[in-house]
Amino acid sequence: MAVRTPDPDPEPDDDGLGGFGDGAPQPPAPDANPGWLSDVELEEARRHLPMLYVEAIPVRTDGSGQVSEIGILLRSTPLGEMTRTIVSGRVRFGETIRDALFRHVENDLGPMAFPLLPPQPLPFTVAEYFPIPGVSAYHDDRQHAVSLAFVVPVTGTCEPRQDALEVTWFSPEAAGSDAVWSEMEGGRGTLIRHALASLGLLR
Amino acid sequence: MAVRTPDPDPEPDDDGLGGFGDGAPQPPAPDANPGWLSDVELEEARRHLPMLYVEAIPVRTDGSGQVSEIGILLRSTPLGEMTRTIVSGRVRFGETIRDALFRHVENDLGPMAFPLLPPQPLPFTVAEYFPIPGVSAYHDDRQHAVSLAFVVPVTGTCEPRQDALEVTWFSPEAAGSDAVWSEMEGGRGTLIRHALASLGLLR
Amino acid sequence: MAVRTPDPDPEPDDDGLGGFGDGAPQPPAPDANPGWLSDVELEEARRHLPMLYVEAIPVRTDGSGQVSEIGILLRSTPLGEMTRTIVSGRVRFGETIRDALFRHVENDLGPMAFPLLPPQPLPFTVAEYFPIPGVSAYHDDRQHAVSLAFVVPVTGTCEPRQDALEVTWFSPEAAGSDAVWSEMEGGRGTLIRHALASLGLLR
Amino acid sequence: MAVRTPDPDPEPDDDGLGGFGDGAPQPPAPDANPGWLSDVELEEARRHLPMLYVEAIPVRTDGSGQVSEIGILLRSTPLGEMTRTIVSGRVRFGETIRDALFRHVENDLGPMAFPLLPPQPLPFTVAEYFPIPGVSAYHDDRQHAVSLAFVVPVTGTCEPRQDALEVTWFSPEAAGSDAVWSEMEGGRGTLIRHALASLGLLR
Repeated sequence: MAVRTPDPDPEPDDDGLGGFGDGAPQPPAPDANPGWLSDVELEEARRHLPMLYVEAIPVRTDGSGQVSEIGILLRSTPLGEMTRTIVSGRVRFGETIRDALFRHVENDLGPMAFPLLPPQPLPFTVAEYFPIPGVSAYHDDRQHAVSLAFVVPVTGTCEPRQDALEVTWFSPEAAGSDAVWSEMEGGRGTLIRHALASLGLLR
Repeated sequence: MAVRTPDPDPEPDDDGLGGFGDGAPQPPAPDANPGWLSDVELEEARRHLPMLYVEAIPVRTDGSGQVSEIGILLRSTPLGEMTRTIVSGRVRFGETIRDALFRHVENDLGPMAFPLLPPQPLPFTVAEYFPIPGVSAYHDDRQHAVSLAFVVPVTGTCEPRQDALEVTWFSPEAAGSDAVWSEMEGGRGTLIRHALASLGLLR
Repeated sequence: MAVRTPDPDPEPDDDGLGGFGDGAPQPPAPDANPGWLSDVELEEARRHLPMLYVEAIPVRTDGSGQVSEIGILLRSTPLGEMTRTIVSGRVRFGETIRDALFRHVENDLGPMAFPLLPPQPLPFTVAEYFPIPGVSAYHDDRQHAVSLAFVVPVTGTCEPRQDALEVTWFSPEAAGSDAVWSEMEGGRGTLIRHALASLGLLR
Repeated sequence: MAVRTPDPDPEPDDDGLGGFGDGAPQPPAPDANPGWLSDVELEEARRHLPMLYVEAIPVRTDGSGQVSEIGILLRSTPLGEMTRTIVSGRVRFGETIRDALFRHVENDLGPMAFPLLPPQPLPFTVAEYFPIPGVSAYHDDRQHAVSLAFVVPVTGTCEPRQDALEVTWFSPEAAGSDAVWSEMEGGRGTLIRHALASLGLLR
């Protein structure tokens, strides 16, 4: 069991589906929920159970609610490679999907993003990430993850929490292009296209 | 053909599914789209074609996007009876569904309602109104109407356009109750329950 | 008003969104619903009101319900050009959407197609066809049509009703390709991609 | 760690959300996936991670695809109490949602049920079961479970696998009644009503 020292993110390693941004194991915070797992335990669980995730594609809308821009995160992997991704993170024990979605949006886009979480609880798609590529359109080396994916309009300013991370805004057409598709990690280019279809914006 | 004199609502009688608020035929405005119909023509069309409608259930949400209140309109019919209904109106020739939805929300809730139209174009249900009761859960004496129904969060102040009209805010539980159900016109109590189900709020 | 003589298709011109297969006006059958319109009246209505359509994309599924093939219709236009399309037709006055869907699937795919209409009434998308190209992804020279589009598994043999018409079965990947997209009329290549997204099969 | 002896159901205790039908711990089969957990390990995981479930509501449809009957399972708990439930079970490590759904439908309804799994991967709702009642409409003493719930038409004969289990067919109206609602375990009466709403059958 990890030593308990203060940490701003009580349960480590619970966001970032896809294997980057994880670095060294982090100990849980002193006020951590006893239901949460240490890093070692979480790694163990990842080899035996499908992990539940939420993902969010930030968008900007015009006055009539129509989506005008799609936000995609740019990150540098531990190996220094640049990849594109979306807001993504694990649902904790005892946490509602809505709370998990809000937490990860705030964590990845900053406290000034002012997201408008959808009133409906149903995701636009359920993405199944498998450790072996090819089982589905999505893969994640580390784990079997099942992700409920949402489109989330943001009305404020996105300030990703680390220097290595920025939000790039694309037109719907550009977001669905082959160029963006090929830069996205774990098959999320497909997820973007599914989001565009749900928005009536896929051509 | 009706005489063309100025009128604030260019195509008469195009909102208000359900037979109230219609009064005497109104002539179209001089700047009316030539594609629009006069009152007489519209009445004729209603006996031969399914009419396309949009409907909106205004809601208030909390900071996490969860719906906290459901808005239901109170109206008095030409006979002086009070009934409950929702935002409802016809889609015009050449008009997008989104534009029709925005127009009817503004028309029924006033210019200060500040609605957040959903980014997705898919309604939560398609309600089929038939002139003969019992064919479906919905009926409308005047016509066969097919309505695309949406939940629309509003962030401002609703000021219905006529004295006879007000918006009452209900908790999700009250909005789905048998009491409210029985006061709603044309089967819209069922529509409210479908909306609550789509919001995960039906018990 | 057209002379009433026997005809196998009581209300003429009510299927085939897109301007082909229409030919000369056909009179209604003697047992036609008095609510239905003659050809001339229908043409008139098309210039003034949005017309309600249903569309169906026939698919074949494997034992686990996964879609393995997408059916696309091949037709020759009155000008002898070959185009690809899907099952499409108008909803009549007094007809439910489910009945309209069943009627047009049987009409376009033959009585031995044995379709499995979806238990849910909600379409995978609502396609808005405008007479002017560019307003949306879909257009139809003749009219403003709003179409509720469904995926319909078929379990039998499709025998399109005319020599000029055949059903070609594509893999999901091929159905979403640029090649098929560019051969489809009125923007329906986009509709196919939306269907693939709703099936989790778009890449 | 449990002794590994042959067993027809390799990973024990993976179906039956809600705490009945579990009995004594069962060892995994010799050919069990090494990714699967023993009973003890699974109990441990249940106290720390949200568990991913699928649920299915079996229905019968008429020739036009309209749902005519809703199937609800009757079970006797270990304490001899009769409760109503639906098809329910855990998604295993490495298993697709579709495969899990098929496996649990077959397991609960028998090999002659001939289910028609939906071509779309999106559930009609996502039900969140918490160990503490009141957090959501659903609860499960044993665990935090997140369930993707589907409507599954069956075309054959349902033969539940144990004497204590039978399928009762209800009309949509009866299935949504307060009487059935109050007999269902863990809040699944609400799930039935959500399914009815998605089918357009809730009144």
